[in-house]
Amino acid sequence: MLIDILYSAICHSDIHIAREEWGPPYPSTLFPCVPGHEVIGRVAAVGNAVTKFRVGDTVGAGPMIASCRSCENCRADLEQYCQVGWTLAFNTPDKISGGHNYGGFAERIMLPEHFVMRIPPRMNLAAAAPLLCAGITTFSPLQHWDASAGKRVGIIGLGGLGHLGVKLAAARGADVTVFTSSPGKVDDARRLGAREGVLWTETGMLEPYADKFDLLISTLPVVVPTTPFTNLLRLDGTLVIVGAREPIDNVTGAGLWGRRRNVSASLMGGMAETQAMIDYCASRNIVADIELISPDQIDRAFDRVKAKDVRYRFVLDLTRGRQAPAQA
Amino acid sequence: MLIDILYSAICHSDIHIAREEWGPPYPSTLFPCVPGHEVIGRVAAVGNAVTKFRVGDTVGAGPMIASCRSCENCRADLEQYCQVGWTLAFNTPDKISGGHNYGGFAERIMLPEHFVMRIPPRMNLAAAAPLLCAGITTFSPLQHWDASAGKRVGIIGLGGLGHLGVKLAAARGADVTVFTSSPGKVDDARRLGAREGVLWTETGMLEPYADKFDLLISTLPVVVPTTPFTNLLRLDGTLVIVGAREPIDNVTGAGLWGRRRNVSASLMGGMAETQAMIDYCASRNIVADIELISPDQIDRAFDRVKAKDVRYRFVLDLTRGRQAPAQA
Repeated sequence: MLIDILYSAICHSDIHIAREEWGPPYPSTLFPCVPGHEVIGRVAAVGNAVTKFRVGDTVGAGPMIASCRSCENCRADLEQYCQVGWTLAFNTPDKISGGHNYGGFAERIMLPEHFVMRIPPRMNLAAAAPLLCAGITTFSPLQHWDASAGKRVGIIGLGGLGHLGVKLAAARGADVTVFTSSPGKVDDARRLGAREGVLWTETGMLEPYADKFDLLISTLPVVVPTTPFTNLLRLDGTLVIVGAREPIDNVTGAGLWGRRRNVSASLMGGMAETQAMIDYCASRNIVADIELISPDQIDRAFDRVKAKDVRYRFVLDLTRGRQAPAQA
Repeated sequence: MLIDILYSAICHSDIHIAREEWGPPYPSTLFPCVPGHEVIGRVAAVGNAVTKFRVGDTVGAGPMIASCRSCENCRADLEQYCQVGWTLAFNTPDKISGGHNYGGFAERIMLPEHFVMRIPPRMNLAAAAPLLCAGITTFSPLQHWDASAGKRVGIIGLGGLGHLGVKLAAARGADVTVFTSSPGKVDDARRLGAREGVLWTETGMLEPYADKFDLLISTLPVVVPTTPFTNLLRLDGTLVIVGAREPIDNVTGAGLWGRRRNVSASLMGGMAETQAMIDYCASRNIVADIELISPDQIDRAFDRVKAKDVRYRFVLDLTRGRQAPAQA
C-alpha cells in the first residue's frame, strides 16, 4: 500500500546510520540514504490483496517493514525476533528495485499492510509518530517484564525513548525513577510521571538506590556503564538494554550473582503488540513531547539530538502543500 | 553444634582462595588458611538450642555458615542473597575467636544448625560431599529457570559443577548438551546423561547450535567468553554464570537483543533448597563421581584440578582413626 507521509520523527538510530556511526556487524550505510522509521501518514492507494485498510485511513509505520512471517517467532507475533531476519525501513538492499530502500523522511512510502498500524481517531498525529519506534521499544519490555503497581522501575536516559518509557511505566502503575546525566532534565522527570529524577553522573548519587529496583531500562544510545546500574537491582531484577547495540561494559559474575540479577536486551515489539501499544496510548492520551520542524532543519536537529538538546523528539512536518487530515 | 568431619571435597573456589587467585572486591586470603566447604560429617555434640539434630546424626554443610536471618531475602529462604551478607565457611573474620574461621579440610567444625543439612540413610557419603556446593550451585538455577522436559539445556564446562549439572538436568527430563574444552571428556557427556558432548573450542563447532537453547549454565571457573554462547540461546533464553566472579566478556546489546536473551548469575542455593536438593538426589541415587584421596595429597590434587585432571571431584577421606559410620 502507498502512504502519503504526514509526519516523520527523528530517532537516534537514524543519525547513527546517516552519519555512519555503526560498524560491523551492521551493514554499511548505503547512499543516497533516506532515514526515517517513525512515520504517520494517510493511505493513498492500496493493492488488491490489502484487506485491513482503505484509501484515506490514517496509519503508522515503524522500523520493521518485512519479516519471514513463517518462523516460530514470527508465528508467535514476535516478528522483531524473526529467525530469518527482518527488514529495516531504510538502508536495506531492495529485491524489487535492485537498489536499496528509503525511509520516512520522504513524501510517501510503499509498505506491506502487515507492517502498517491503524491510528485511532483524535490522536495528535505529529506527537504520535515517535510511538512507532520509541514508544514500542519501551512499551514491549515494560509488558514483558511486567512493570506494574508494586514494582519499582528505573528509566536510564531521558531522551526520546526515555521520556516515553516514563509515561508508559507510570501509566502502568509502577513506581518510576529517572536516571539522567542532564541537570536540566531532573525536574522534567516528575512532570512526566516519575517519583523523582536522579543526576546519576554525580559521585555517590546512585548509592541510596542499591538493591531497590525490579526493572531498569537503559535507553542510552551508547555503551552502557553496566555495573553501577546492576547494583541497583534487587533479587531477580533485570537491566534491559534497548538503546544500544554496543558492548555492555563491565558486567561481572560477582556483580550479578549477589542478587541473581539479569541483563537483557529488547528490540521494538511485534506488529500485534505495536498496534496494542498505539491503542493503549490513544485511550490514555499518551503521546511524545515533540518539537515540530520543517525538512530543511534536519541537519541542525541531528546536531541538537547529539547534544541532548531536544525535549524530547523532533518531528518533521511533511504536511505542507497537502490537505490536512480531517482528524488532525 | 560440633561435627566430626568424615569427608570434605575440593572445590575450585578453595584453590582460588588458598592460592590467592581472587583480587578485590574479595577479601585477601587470611593465613593460616583452612579451605573446605563441601563437608559430610557426624554430629559430635549439640548445644541446648539445637532442636533438629542429635549426636550421631549424619549431616552435611556447604559454603554458607551464617546470614542475617532477618532481611527479606533470608526470610524468603534465599539466604545466599542475604542483604546484609552471608558468611563463608572459611577465610572470614570470626567475631567470637577474634581470628578468622577455618573450613572443612579439618577433623571437626562448629556450625549453627540452620546451616547444617540432614543426610538421608544409604547415601554414599564420600560421593555426597560435593552436593553441598557443586550440587546446589547447579540444582538451584535448573530449578529457578525451570529446566524440564521439552527444554534444551547446555552445560558449559564439565568439571565438578558441570558433571553434577548434567546429572541433575537429565534427571529433570531436560534435553542436555555438554560444551567442554577437553577432548577426553566428550564421551563422558553421554555417560552422565547428556544427548552429546561438544568440543566447543574447535572452530565452527558451535555454529549448528545457534538459536537452540532455553538455558545455558556456565560452570567455567574463569572469564566466560560470552558471545559465542549467548548466540546459542533461543528467544528469551538465559545464560547463567555459576562458576566465575570475573567479568562477563564481550556481551553486547546487539548480541542479546536479537532474541531478547538474558545473562544472569546464580549463587549456591538457600538452606531449604539445599536440603530439598539432597533429598532429591538421595531418592534418585545421584551423587558425584569422585576420587578419594588422603589429606597429604591435597597440593597434588589442587594441581590436578587446575590441569582439569579429575573425574570429577577430589574428596578428602578424613575417617581414618575413627569409627566408620554405620550407614556409610
